[in-house]
Amino acid sequence: MPGEDAVLLTAEDYRRAARERVGADVWDFVEGGGGAEHTLAANRRAFEEVTFRPRVLVDVSACDTGTTLFGQALRSPIGIAPTAYHRLVHPEGEVATAVGAGTAGALYVVSMFASRTLTDIAAAANSPLWMQLYWFTHRDMVADVVTRAASVGCTALVLTVDAPRIGKRLRDLRNGFAVDPAVRAENLDEDLLAAVHEQHAGRSAIATSAELTFDQTITWADLPWLRSLTGLPLLLKGVLTAEDARRAVDHGVDGIVVSNHGGRQLDGVPASLVALVEVVGAVGGAMPVLVDGGVRTGTDVFAALALGASAVLIGRPALWALAAGGAAGVGDLLGTLAGELEHTMALAGRPTVADIDSSAVSHRW
Amino acid sequence: MPGEDAVLLTAEDYRRAARERVGADVWDFVEGGGGAEHTLAANRRAFEEVTFRPRVLVDVSACDTGTTLFGQALRSPIGIAPTAYHRLVHPEGEVATAVGAGTAGALYVVSMFASRTLTDIAAAANSPLWMQLYWFTHRDMVADVVTRAASVGCTALVLTVDAPRIGKRLRDLRNGFAVDPAVRAENLDEDLLAAVHEQHAGRSAIATSAELTFDQTITWADLPWLRSLTGLPLLLKGVLTAEDARRAVDHGVDGIVVSNHGGRQLDGVPASLVALVEVVGAVGGAMPVLVDGGVRTGTDVFAALALGASAVLIGRPALWALAAGGAAGVGDLLGTLAGELEHTMALAGRPTVADIDSSAVSHRW
Amino acid sequence: MPGEDAVLLTAEDYRRAARERVGADVWDFVEGGGGAEHTLAANRRAFEEVTFRPRVLVDVSACDTGTTLFGQALRSPIGIAPTAYHRLVHPEGEVATAVGAGTAGALYVVSMFASRTLTDIAAAANSPLWMQLYWFTHRDMVADVVTRAASVGCTALVLTVDAPRIGKRLRDLRNGFAVDPAVRAENLDEDLLAAVHEQHAGRSAIATSAELTFDQTITWADLPWLRSLTGLPLLLKGVLTAEDARRAVDHGVDGIVVSNHGGRQLDGVPASLVALVEVVGAVGGAMPVLVDGGVRTGTDVFAALALGASAVLIGRPALWALAAGGAAGVGDLLGTLAGELEHTMALAGRPTVADIDSSAVSHRW
Amino acid sequence: MPGEDAVLLTAEDYRRAARERVGADVWDFVEGGGGAEHTLAANRRAFEEVTFRPRVLVDVSACDTGTTLFGQALRSPIGIAPTAYHRLVHPEGEVATAVGAGTAGALYVVSMFASRTLTDIAAAANSPLWMQLYWFTHRDMVADVVTRAASVGCTALVLTVDAPRIGKRLRDLRNGFAVDPAVRAENLDEDLLAAVHEQHAGRSAIATSAELTFDQTITWADLPWLRSLTGLPLLLKGVLTAEDARRAVDHGVDGIVVSNHGGRQLDGVPASLVALVEVVGAVGGAMPVLVDGGVRTGTDVFAALALGASAVLIGRPALWALAAGGAAGVGDLLGTLAGELEHTMALAGRPTVADIDSSAVSHRW
Repeated sequence: MPGEDAVLLTAEDYRRAARERVGADVWDFVEGGGGAEHTLAANRRAFEEVTFRPRVLVDVSACDTGTTLFGQALRSPIGIAPTAYHRLVHPEGEVATAVGAGTAGALYVVSMFASRTLTDIAAAANSPLWMQLYWFTHRDMVADVVTRAASVGCTALVLTVDAPRIGKRLRDLRNGFAVDPAVRAENLDEDLLAAVHEQHAGRSAIATSAELTFDQTITWADLPWLRSLTGLPLLLKGVLTAEDARRAVDHGVDGIVVSNHGGRQLDGVPASLVALVEVVGAVGGAMPVLVDGGVRTGTDVFAALALGASAVLIGRPALWALAAGGAAGVGDLLGTLAGELEHTMALAGRPTVADIDSSAVSHRW
Repeated sequence: MPGEDAVLLTAEDYRRAARERVGADVWDFVEGGGGAEHTLAANRRAFEEVTFRPRVLVDVSACDTGTTLFGQALRSPIGIAPTAYHRLVHPEGEVATAVGAGTAGALYVVSMFASRTLTDIAAAANSPLWMQLYWFTHRDMVADVVTRAASVGCTALVLTVDAPRIGKRLRDLRNGFAVDPAVRAENLDEDLLAAVHEQHAGRSAIATSAELTFDQTITWADLPWLRSLTGLPLLLKGVLTAEDARRAVDHGVDGIVVSNHGGRQLDGVPASLVALVEVVGAVGGAMPVLVDGGVRTGTDVFAALALGASAVLIGRPALWALAAGGAAGVGDLLGTLAGELEHTMALAGRPTVADIDSSAVSHRW
Repeated sequence: MPGEDAVLLTAEDYRRAARERVGADVWDFVEGGGGAEHTLAANRRAFEEVTFRPRVLVDVSACDTGTTLFGQALRSPIGIAPTAYHRLVHPEGEVATAVGAGTAGALYVVSMFASRTLTDIAAAANSPLWMQLYWFTHRDMVADVVTRAASVGCTALVLTVDAPRIGKRLRDLRNGFAVDPAVRAENLDEDLLAAVHEQHAGRSAIATSAELTFDQTITWADLPWLRSLTGLPLLLKGVLTAEDARRAVDHGVDGIVVSNHGGRQLDGVPASLVALVEVVGAVGGAMPVLVDGGVRTGTDVFAALALGASAVLIGRPALWALAAGGAAGVGDLLGTLAGELEHTMALAGRPTVADIDSSAVSHRW
Repeated sequence: MPGEDAVLLTAEDYRRAARERVGADVWDFVEGGGGAEHTLAANRRAFEEVTFRPRVLVDVSACDTGTTLFGQALRSPIGIAPTAYHRLVHPEGEVATAVGAGTAGALYVVSMFASRTLTDIAAAANSPLWMQLYWFTHRDMVADVVTRAASVGCTALVLTVDAPRIGKRLRDLRNGFAVDPAVRAENLDEDLLAAVHEQHAGRSAIATSAELTFDQTITWADLPWLRSLTGLPLLLKGVLTAEDARRAVDHGVDGIVVSNHGGRQLDGVPASLVALVEVVGAVGGAMPVLVDGGVRTGTDVFAALALGASAVLIGRPALWALAAGGAAGVGDLLGTLAGELEHTMALAGRPTVADIDSSAVSHRW
């Protein structure tokens, strides 16, 4: 069980360690959510409303957290969610994240707003990389990123669909938060970014960036264009309802990431774990459903798997670990979480990921 | 998105700004509710018990908050609720409120206890004005106000039906609150008001005023007399039950404002948002249903619309904005709320007011 | 509306005033409950879980709180519950309580442990008196009290059935609380009381008293003996279940007081308002059902009536008023509560007690 | 009612007294739970969600807490749960616990990790002893303990099935808690224990011990081997689901202890009282079902019995009493709890244990 010998025993420990290393406005950017942050809180609360139904007298001498997604073996069903600008919290940025993920044999979904080049990230990676995409008005920029992602070996695309605009993040607005000009979206067009990175007095540069770049017109009818660029599996990230899950099935999408963007977009949407149950029910096994938002422990991972997730992604915890310990921190945290999951599997009497079905939990919502 | 560049980002910001500018007893008069203020708290809590069901991959490049009420176009479904004596918080009183509403193209329901003359208010107005009425024992005084309201261009009447007496507002009773004699109900009879405005030691002058003037005998049978005075649409404000909503339909009323008087009348009645669902169900589309009570953000507006409201009215927030910034403050706050609504529509995948139907939310009560 | 001109606007105000006048151990005796005081808290919480369903456009110009119980007219359905030893909080004790009740035209249920003689209490009374009874092992003592109660004009008997023993009141046990020897149960046998009032070091004298005197063997089969003593109506106080309510009907009891002894007996039993609904359903109108426990405002009274109570009794609030202002305090508080009830009736559109039916409320338990 | 004359009136009083006598890391070892201690809290909360349904006019002059388990008479249905290393909190350890249990005529389940020899414990005992077992990889060690337990007169075996591994007890991990080397598991093999008791820097020696010794492979198929060692009744401790309860019936187990190990194993499992209801329903009377976890008062015992438990076991409270007062403390606390149970039976109108059926309670989960 990694981490047990260290001071950093839990993800929350990494959070405290990170807080000491990161400036106040970056901390708010990482930690904050949209509006009154109700959804941010709901993400955590939902996990506390799950209870486990452990089985006893099961042989748990060899619990195995391994799983497979789109034919790729993963050492655990715990991956890293796409988050922007890792160099805000650590000088090596996404390269260190990729190294840490590789140490743990974990999936890493690279953000389109990564602050290291795809080439550098892929060179450092030693485990599956997926590429996250926003749909820009400059559609050729999307095509360019997709092409480069495929060329460096990314094995799936994750299109974010809950952000036609950036959410009202009041912390950033009050801080007038702007990304440090030295931290750039290295995989996007230079000229556009020059405009984006200008400081707008009293405004959030993140929001400004989104306004300048995100295409608010795209609909389901535009997906074929994206699919035409590559044969990689395409997942939609940000689906929260059965209606949209069924549309995703109908449109031949390859997977869904149930997500409320870590509570950073529309405040008041359901906890991602609650939405997961609805989406899984609607998808009916037609494709893998992943989830992010509020996962902080291996017991949380177990809960999500029992409620139908094929895997979970961690966002903020990966940044905490990166800030606290660089690549080693990321690897250690992923190991800690996998260890907690394995421990939960043992005590719940479910020695394999396939054993973690809906009989393993009940929930109170 | 108005307000984003300013320090005043949310209605709550205006509240804080207002508190610094208004005396303690006036503040209690504005902020307080009836009894133990359970309903006051419930009004807010109900909005927090709504969750949104956002749809993705919808073209939201041109979201439109515009709507129509009784044939009148409004730039947004956010209007100003009738509240008394605006000069208590700003020297220009209701004239400034009307100017601010006009800036935002918003509906303004003028209180019968306005502290500026209807003539002055109407002259400043640049958006629809409606006239709120209490039913006085001096019935000719009601007739007189109705006539003048129609003559200055008010386009609807809103009869308050939840106040045969004024609620037990303990803050005012403990403060012995009396309205500053310089702030008068400029549209009511001088002699009667002279009596009303005498200070009653240790009592609430507001309560005394109501006792002297409100007719506690009126019933549904009296509505025809009121309707005989004018052809303007008549709305009832303060309906909270399906039973009364059906009676309103049966009596040919033109609209309902679901309201608990901002929690200032009978403490213990339901949150207005909860009552809205019941009333909308009973009315069955026969007439527009508006709601006030607890609306503080554009997401709140979205929730109310999804639950069947044709529009919402804001009471205390308008006074906060008036206190904090006069006409400009009122206009800015209305713009902020409309911007938040538009933002919510974009992120929820409902680009027009007509798209905001019951599929857009769920609630936990 | 009595009380509005005074500093003492609500029962809670009387509580604060009383606290300053009463010693700490007597205060604990008055305020405390059994065990962990969960039921004590539940009594209040239940009232906060009721919401009102007000009707509008009802003639409420003449609301009437008057009601009738066992053929006796009462100015309001708010009476005083039996509580022991009123001289602990005021030198005039139950005589002052009776005077205060008379001022308000309110029912007063005298405790068997009254600290003034029945003769003195009755002489001061100017409104209906009922007599509360515990069933003693010295059965002739019960008979004696019943005879004297009837002779001084009490018009009903209230047998407490929830106290075969006294509850575990930890505050009293920790205080080693003993009733001041100068405060005696004036209507009980001298010799027995001499033993009872001996101080037992480190024990609660109240509990000791009960152990020495209460008959733990009595059952429904013993009721005929009690009824044989007098033709007065007999009510059972402390019934909390449908099962016992039906037995009461079967045994020809005349009325029930739903009560958990103010949360002072078995901790963990339901709030009295919750039990009221169950008991009223089981009784089906066969007899009057009263309730005590947690009533602090006129809106609470309205809630209890709407849920089927014929009247409510107040325990601690009467002691607060007695401590704070003697007879005048008791009268003022009863007037305040009746005024609050009348106010609630007006704003709820129920001008008579008979109008306060189950359509007037909903509840969340 | 024992305890009433003392300062130690409730189990909570013993807790406070114990805290002053025990070192901080031992205190954490006793008090702590697994993970975020949600289950630890849930154990208590469940009891607060039970309400009693008291019957009145029942003869409660002779309430009897006596009961019978596996043919053995017990003075009350309150026994002592197995907990390790009693010498951590009192020099006489389990011998004092046994003396205290004997004083109260209470069942005592001795832990396999007792810090006094079975011979010494049995010599001091004056009431039924049962023997708790973990299933070690050194199977002959299990057989040895079973043989010795039977030889000293233990009358049942309790196999713990919820601990193939030790839970993640963060308090112990952060404290680097190791059992004082002078406090040994006196009934286990010396050489193995020498290894176990080595201090592992920064790790919990308790967890280390479990890793070295517990057999994680055992399943239902292994139970016949254990049964072949002795004819004593065999109970499974740690069953939480209907599925496993039914399997226990099918495998001819003699009894179940519904338990979540005091919240010390998998965090997030249900409160034991909640699981009790499920297990009792599944067992359908086929065998006795006991419960531990969160019992702190006699009213808690009453609740568990009403929900189907044949008896309850107390874990931490016994250690508090042992720490606070040695054998006398244990006896006094057991007497206090039995007195509280008897008191509850009297006030609930259930004079015998058999009368405490499901009609006596309702619950809110």
